[in-house]
Amino acid sequence: MSGDFPSGSVGLVTPQSVRFSGAFTFANGATLDGYELVYETYGELNATGDNAVLICHALSGSHHAAGYHDGADRRAGWWDLVIGPGKPIDTRRLFVVCSNNLGCCDGSTGPNAARDDGTPWGSRFPQPQVQDWVRSQKQLAEHLGISRWAAVIGGSLGGMQALQWAVDFPEWVEHCVALAAAPGLTAQNIAFNEIARHAIVSDPDWHEGNYLAEGTLPARGVALARMVGHLTYMSADGMSDRFGRELREGSYTPESNQEWVFQVESYLRHQGARFSTQFDANTYVLMTRALDLFDLARSHGDGLAQTLSRATAEFLIVSFSSDWRFPPQRSIEIRDALLAVEKPVTYANIETDDGHDAFLLPNQTYEKLLDQWMRRVGPHESA
Amino acid sequence: MSGDFPSGSVGLVTPQSVRFSGAFTFANGATLDGYELVYETYGELNATGDNAVLICHALSGSHHAAGYHDGADRRAGWWDLVIGPGKPIDTRRLFVVCSNNLGCCDGSTGPNAARDDGTPWGSRFPQPQVQDWVRSQKQLAEHLGISRWAAVIGGSLGGMQALQWAVDFPEWVEHCVALAAAPGLTAQNIAFNEIARHAIVSDPDWHEGNYLAEGTLPARGVALARMVGHLTYMSADGMSDRFGRELREGSYTPESNQEWVFQVESYLRHQGARFSTQFDANTYVLMTRALDLFDLARSHGDGLAQTLSRATAEFLIVSFSSDWRFPPQRSIEIRDALLAVEKPVTYANIETDDGHDAFLLPNQTYEKLLDQWMRRVGPHESA
Repeated sequence: MSGDFPSGSVGLVTPQSVRFSGAFTFANGATLDGYELVYETYGELNATGDNAVLICHALSGSHHAAGYHDGADRRAGWWDLVIGPGKPIDTRRLFVVCSNNLGCCDGSTGPNAARDDGTPWGSRFPQPQVQDWVRSQKQLAEHLGISRWAAVIGGSLGGMQALQWAVDFPEWVEHCVALAAAPGLTAQNIAFNEIARHAIVSDPDWHEGNYLAEGTLPARGVALARMVGHLTYMSADGMSDRFGRELREGSYTPESNQEWVFQVESYLRHQGARFSTQFDANTYVLMTRALDLFDLARSHGDGLAQTLSRATAEFLIVSFSSDWRFPPQRSIEIRDALLAVEKPVTYANIETDDGHDAFLLPNQTYEKLLDQWMRRVGPHESA
Repeated sequence: MSGDFPSGSVGLVTPQSVRFSGAFTFANGATLDGYELVYETYGELNATGDNAVLICHALSGSHHAAGYHDGADRRAGWWDLVIGPGKPIDTRRLFVVCSNNLGCCDGSTGPNAARDDGTPWGSRFPQPQVQDWVRSQKQLAEHLGISRWAAVIGGSLGGMQALQWAVDFPEWVEHCVALAAAPGLTAQNIAFNEIARHAIVSDPDWHEGNYLAEGTLPARGVALARMVGHLTYMSADGMSDRFGRELREGSYTPESNQEWVFQVESYLRHQGARFSTQFDANTYVLMTRALDLFDLARSHGDGLAQTLSRATAEFLIVSFSSDWRFPPQRSIEIRDALLAVEKPVTYANIETDDGHDAFLLPNQTYEKLLDQWMRRVGPHESA
């Protein structure tokens, strides 16, 4: 840690990686001969191994959840808001692990990795499902000497992973925190993902997913996909407050013949353009498809309550009032299924205009609630 | 009319057109030497000329609002639901006019029309605003011998036109019906339009809007634009009821390795593909931009109530509960502004899962309400 970083930061962090050489078989039957996971850890694993917490990332997230990669780095990890010494996920007493999902593009084995013949996997990379990420993360845990998670925590797709962990390996999960999540996607959710994918595969530079071999990048398609996604992460009211009907320059009158560009347009274009050079197109297709396929209720027999009856964890379920991607009602479905099978669950709906993105953004009620609830996680000092 | 058509239909209709040879100056200062409007009429104009009703179409609509174009035609005009003998907009007593908007692609002068040099306007066509459509429709009315509308009626962008008519030419509008409309677009609305436009202009076949000269069509971009638009016309609940999580074939299990295509995906792809061969890309750009620019409150001085104080019409404002493109709150803004300046207004919110599209779809409450309200429109039989 360095005095150059904000107080409460985990400071300088270094990504690590591990290669698993045995075959990995995906739920759908596809196999990899071996694979690599890149991950970060914050805090120290204690001697009894009962202070480990797993953070699961969302669609475009990575293993870099907290801290900084070098002294000049001014952009902290994606969930620095709640991970650090004295923060809700308190690295003074918890050992925090976050890995890049298998099939992603931030260092773990994914579509850009080379096959045996030296060519990139591209669109031939197996379709991962949330269950596959859980199983690969279990291999990582065993590699780190962890035999049980004090908590598995995530928002959005990460929250879905946390729920899947709790039912796939109940004995491994003592607490489960799912924020802005859902037990499965609706037709509208799937439709937005399909539009994003359609934008990517319609780009002439897509080349059936083999763009690396062709020396191109479907950047226009990825930019559009991101614009669609980003729009759904914000609430209508939040966008009105932030952008309103303001133009980038000047102000509208019917008589004006200026080039009309609203601020919200240049914001979205900028978000799309930036993302298109940073995120891999095949990964975006795989991640959105994994979201579409996630179906907690069908992952063990049939029905949400029956599936959740397998869990032994204590649950925290949090929704955000203006989240229209995974609205409060979807969290209430999870809460009610847990209550139906008499599982311990705390549910809170946070009032906010920040939409789906709210789980990543400052909010006193949310941060305090998470902070207080997390005090039950991990070893407690003996009296 | 023919017995081959459903009862209540206006039957066989023939589009007409008129060319105005004088110069037309758009609000933004651009000019056309002359222009053509294509239109349809249903019913008969009476001798006193006080039974004429104007229907304004929405983004992708046309002049073909009711009836059929030939005996084999099984697809009625876009608002056949409410226009016809005995229907809410009753052609037994009303003379109904609907024109294709200036700048569109269904026969009125627009981007595909030829300039003096024989080349198509393409993206050089002037940007129309709602005010321009009102002024061109007034020329059409005068051509038809109409000096006042018994009612101006429209949904969505068409509802915005109806409102603009009521404040631009108050003495012309006796009744104004605005369905599923808004006094102006929000940042979220504009963002969806920008994504649609970005899809079109990112298509390599766009050629800066000069695709006709290049012998191409930006069909991929238009298809994507339509997918985005269409998605926003439906409600999340309506999509869940209609499509759920059903696959096009088979059913999902984590172990299945089939090609997963959800029904909602193939539906959207089909809608996009069909539209992309029917609708002009430049027109889509111009129409969405006209939507973005519509700002009733700024069209006469400043403020919505002040603007509406000009009107002398009696208003019917209708919203639809699940319309998240122009939600009930936007109609309530119009209602409240009208009430603030003591204008006669009826407001109704229709309970439905049909989203923004609801103004085009069967709903007993909606149809009966419109039917009863419309009885005040036009000449009344003497007792």
